[in-house]
Amino acid sequence: MSAPARPGEDDLIARWFRPLATDPGAHGLVDDCATLAPPPGCDLVLKTDAVAAGIHFFPDDPWDLVARKALRVNLSDLAAKGARPLGHLLSLALPADWREADLAAFAAGLADDQARYGLSLFGGDTIRSPAGLVVSITVFGAVPAGRMVRRAAARPGDLLYVSGTLGDAALGLALRRDSAAASWPLADDERDHLAGRYLLPEPRLALAAAVLAHARAAMDVSDGLDVDLVRMMRPAGLDAVLDRESLPLSAAARTVLAADPARLDAILGGGDDYEILAAVAPENAAAFEAAARTAAVHVTRIGRCEVGEGRVFLSGPDGNPRLRAGGGFRHF
Amino acid sequence: MSAPARPGEDDLIARWFRPLATDPGAHGLVDDCATLAPPPGCDLVLKTDAVAAGIHFFPDDPWDLVARKALRVNLSDLAAKGARPLGHLLSLALPADWREADLAAFAAGLADDQARYGLSLFGGDTIRSPAGLVVSITVFGAVPAGRMVRRAAARPGDLLYVSGTLGDAALGLALRRDSAAASWPLADDERDHLAGRYLLPEPRLALAAAVLAHARAAMDVSDGLDVDLVRMMRPAGLDAVLDRESLPLSAAARTVLAADPARLDAILGGGDDYEILAAVAPENAAAFEAAARTAAVHVTRIGRCEVGEGRVFLSGPDGNPRLRAGGGFRHF
Repeated sequence: MSAPARPGEDDLIARWFRPLATDPGAHGLVDDCATLAPPPGCDLVLKTDAVAAGIHFFPDDPWDLVARKALRVNLSDLAAKGARPLGHLLSLALPADWREADLAAFAAGLADDQARYGLSLFGGDTIRSPAGLVVSITVFGAVPAGRMVRRAAARPGDLLYVSGTLGDAALGLALRRDSAAASWPLADDERDHLAGRYLLPEPRLALAAAVLAHARAAMDVSDGLDVDLVRMMRPAGLDAVLDRESLPLSAAARTVLAADPARLDAILGGGDDYEILAAVAPENAAAFEAAARTAAVHVTRIGRCEVGEGRVFLSGPDGNPRLRAGGGFRHF
Repeated sequence: MSAPARPGEDDLIARWFRPLATDPGAHGLVDDCATLAPPPGCDLVLKTDAVAAGIHFFPDDPWDLVARKALRVNLSDLAAKGARPLGHLLSLALPADWREADLAAFAAGLADDQARYGLSLFGGDTIRSPAGLVVSITVFGAVPAGRMVRRAAARPGDLLYVSGTLGDAALGLALRRDSAAASWPLADDERDHLAGRYLLPEPRLALAAAVLAHARAAMDVSDGLDVDLVRMMRPAGLDAVLDRESLPLSAAARTVLAADPARLDAILGGGDDYEILAAVAPENAAAFEAAARTAAVHVTRIGRCEVGEGRVFLSGPDGNPRLRAGGGFRHF
């Protein structure tokens, strides 16, 4: 055996993960299960999402960033539901060649984000993976009982808002695997911005209170605005009518789009945005915008809801709305 | 493209998994998150466990049994904690060659066991796997607040009980991959018994109430009695002293052991038993045994706890206890 000695599972948990189990209900990870009682008057909000090497991140991405991305894609959902995070459970499938330094980095990344977003590890499982690293995280948060902000609750006339900017992560991914992207006339800092938005999403937990107080419906944009808007509109019997000029784009995305207008499809369909899409009744729009300002999260009104059947229209250069194709269906 | 057309993720969820989301808090899987409020006066008990093709099951095992095993290994933990199952979240990493028939079988297996054990699917995530099927399940159950049965709470003099029989699954695994096992003088039904115990564990949820009412400490035996006893004894400052003649063995395991006495190590160290190990104060032993009888779960007193340091002793043929090696350490 030429492989370096590695700790057994119990030692690994004690060394790297026990320090992350700060909640008393985690029982220091020395029991088989954790216990949790939601805060009085609250529902738990539950979500599970997994990321895999070669699918959601590159096999040579740093493990601290993989850990943080795996946690953040889940936290993004809690934010969109108006929930406050409490904790998470971690299921880790390790490739055959994992090293202690990888796990140390993974745990350090998790520790950073747990502190940043205020949650504890409650338990987990570590297995060998048949291939690359797979990280499956289950998060739980709290909302006042019965108040979780739903996805399909928008009504005709509601205004559509999105946080942050759209498409950066999809363009950042293209920079890493699409040779045509090498010719984009980007400054170094724009390139870094796009790459960073793919590597590490920013869950908009700071906006959760504004969403809870003022939004009629909300979800996070994870598979691209085209697809996710259909998911919000169709079950509510609505169409979305978007204003092309209002779409929030970073300077880097504007540069790409000027050089290569066809990349609008990547911006609206590429996914990995992890921004919040919210439908807000017109009478609550001012309060929502004010609460977002207080939370220091940029939100942009991108369009409105009309009675319809789950279609997405985008106003063209002539001002006439055109049907977006490609929404509502996602192979994986 | 010669591959058959397969549904997108949303269709797949609607077709195969929405029928499993019977609890109102699952919102029919049409929202991004689920909501849950534990029963009044109860803590939630949380557990996550994953199984992977080529590690925890064979790549050609039927998908309905894989689904049920993935759920049952988690339910086994709830049973040992005295908890009643409420629901689960499913994270599914599918191999590139998955077929709709596989998913149909998977969902049917889950549906069977959800009905059998009384729980609902609350949500999930489906991704492509870099290699074979990986199923990660998070279960949550309920216990009266503060009453979860702990793992490290045994005291000197407590009696040790185990449910069912030990080692059958480990021998069933050996039958499938160990050529020496072909010579074991087993009858066909004994062979089937061992193979079945590997394929599909039986979570002892029927025993949960007896454990909750009468056990001082409990855990499920998943990595083999040797290792799991050390996990229960060491943090409590105890040794376990077992009576070799009392170990509950199936007729098939007795046949194997008579032909090949060295297989005792597989029986006590092979894992996959998913039986409950409980430490019971002597004054509660009669009540625990009576409650187990009422629950129709066979339990056997296998030994006792003594002041110590996490060792496991097994009485030999001469009646003298011998230290078991190999406990307390598990590579994975």
